[in-house]
Amino acid sequence: MDYYERFRVTPGSKVDLDKFDPSHKKLHNERQEAEQETIHLRERIRDLQYQMYAERKRSLLVVLQGRDAAGKDGTVRHVFRAMNPQGCRVVSFKVPSKEEAEHDFLWRCHKVTPGLGHITVFNRSHYEDVLVQRVHNIVPKEVWSKRYEQINNFEKMLHENGTHILKFYLHIDQEEQLERFKKRLDKPAKNWKISESDYSERPFWDEYTKAFEEALRRCSTEYAPWFIIPSNRKWFRNLVVARILVAAFESFQMQFPEPTVDLKEIRRLYHDEVKKENDE
Amino acid sequence: MDYYERFRVTPGSKVDLDKFDPSHKKLHNERQEAEQETIHLRERIRDLQYQMYAERKRSLLVVLQGRDAAGKDGTVRHVFRAMNPQGCRVVSFKVPSKEEAEHDFLWRCHKVTPGLGHITVFNRSHYEDVLVQRVHNIVPKEVWSKRYEQINNFEKMLHENGTHILKFYLHIDQEEQLERFKKRLDKPAKNWKISESDYSERPFWDEYTKAFEEALRRCSTEYAPWFIIPSNRKWFRNLVVARILVAAFESFQMQFPEPTVDLKEIRRLYHDEVKKENDE
Repeated sequence: MDYYERFRVTPGSKVDLDKFDPSHKKLHNERQEAEQETIHLRERIRDLQYQMYAERKRSLLVVLQGRDAAGKDGTVRHVFRAMNPQGCRVVSFKVPSKEEAEHDFLWRCHKVTPGLGHITVFNRSHYEDVLVQRVHNIVPKEVWSKRYEQINNFEKMLHENGTHILKFYLHIDQEEQLERFKKRLDKPAKNWKISESDYSERPFWDEYTKAFEEALRRCSTEYAPWFIIPSNRKWFRNLVVARILVAAFESFQMQFPEPTVDLKEIRRLYHDEVKKENDE
Repeated sequence: MDYYERFRVTPGSKVDLDKFDPSHKKLHNERQEAEQETIHLRERIRDLQYQMYAERKRSLLVVLQGRDAAGKDGTVRHVFRAMNPQGCRVVSFKVPSKEEAEHDFLWRCHKVTPGLGHITVFNRSHYEDVLVQRVHNIVPKEVWSKRYEQINNFEKMLHENGTHILKFYLHIDQEEQLERFKKRLDKPAKNWKISESDYSERPFWDEYTKAFEEALRRCSTEYAPWFIIPSNRKWFRNLVVARILVAAFESFQMQFPEPTVDLKEIRRLYHDEVKKENDE
């Protein structure tokens, strides 16, 4: 099943989130089966990441967006934990610091884009600047409305310079969000995660929907696609993200690089060294 | 078995690396048993890291040093992969860039020390500046000889501001290193890792020994201890590092933080919301 194409937002297409079932689970009625596949995919991701790291030819930038409790942290924990941290960094974007706010909105993101062979996962991202900033009028419309094109140009430049981009919108509905907030209340070890925004943002649900729809519509491009991931079921969300990741990696058709040194010469050196030690 | 104390370099003690058996494996004659324990320790590390991340009260800085092929990358892959990348970053220090070289040697390290709740693993570190720089006279003795105290002061300052520091010297012998280099030659998927320094540095073995010994002697402190890890056997190395890590985490006596919001008030809000939805 080609989940890459299935869940990709076709560039230029209109997005109506109501038409996307957040509880969608495709052919996977069996949770256990899906979890098994995700475990296998994680091993595949591990191998492919190693090859990308060795190759040092391209970078991968992953963007995770979604409402509060949509599962951004969970996706990191279940899918991206597969990666060797040596080549994979997760950056969480919070409310901008004073210094960050004194720069254009892409400045703090650009500083942490991945280098060759590396992966960066943005947990929230520059898209916050057309989401929360738009919904709460933190900047006027004439400012945020120009940002879609600015984002596209930025992502295009990254792509043209060797950074592959994948953007995941984790799609849950209002009932599922409330359920998750309640679970945080019931588990003492989860209490610390509860923040005021959990409930103060809920009245803005529809405004966020509009803002997400516009970002998905205007910024899903050939060079930096958005994927809408049905996320009410965490195990299905993990499976879909893992499959898309593997599909992207495989499209790179990677190869281990040629050694930078003369292997024959080194074999001779080692041979001589062992001989010398034996002679002594 | 208290591996933390067993492998720690007692502050102020003389270090003679010849007296440390790199093939040491303590009571673990059974490789399989040790690997099983490491798997369990990884799960424990996962839980403890989550607690540290939630608590946001302290940071952890891990330094990995050792000769070429000593297993720095392998330790990251086998032990630190346990961590959620959201709170754990691995930084590999290479030959300094032009900008880095134009600053003091601690500058590039300080920029990437961990924030509260976070872990940074240094794969190589500021210790390179009293190792390779000393062995190859890249800076004169009057420069590098002052660095031990500078390092101690830097690490003390980090410690006093909430950063716990653990430093691992991965100890292998000359025969093991040659074996590992040869394996890189034999495995096509490892060929890319071979660099000129693999063999060009071998004649400097004894000079490096002296430099390591001085760093271990002068910079193992109460606030930032060095550990000498027997590393000829990879499975034993992983076990020892994992045990020390768990011991350090446990010494923090962490607790989940109190919620920052009024839980009663939120329960009421959610209750009202559900009621309203049902009434509609």
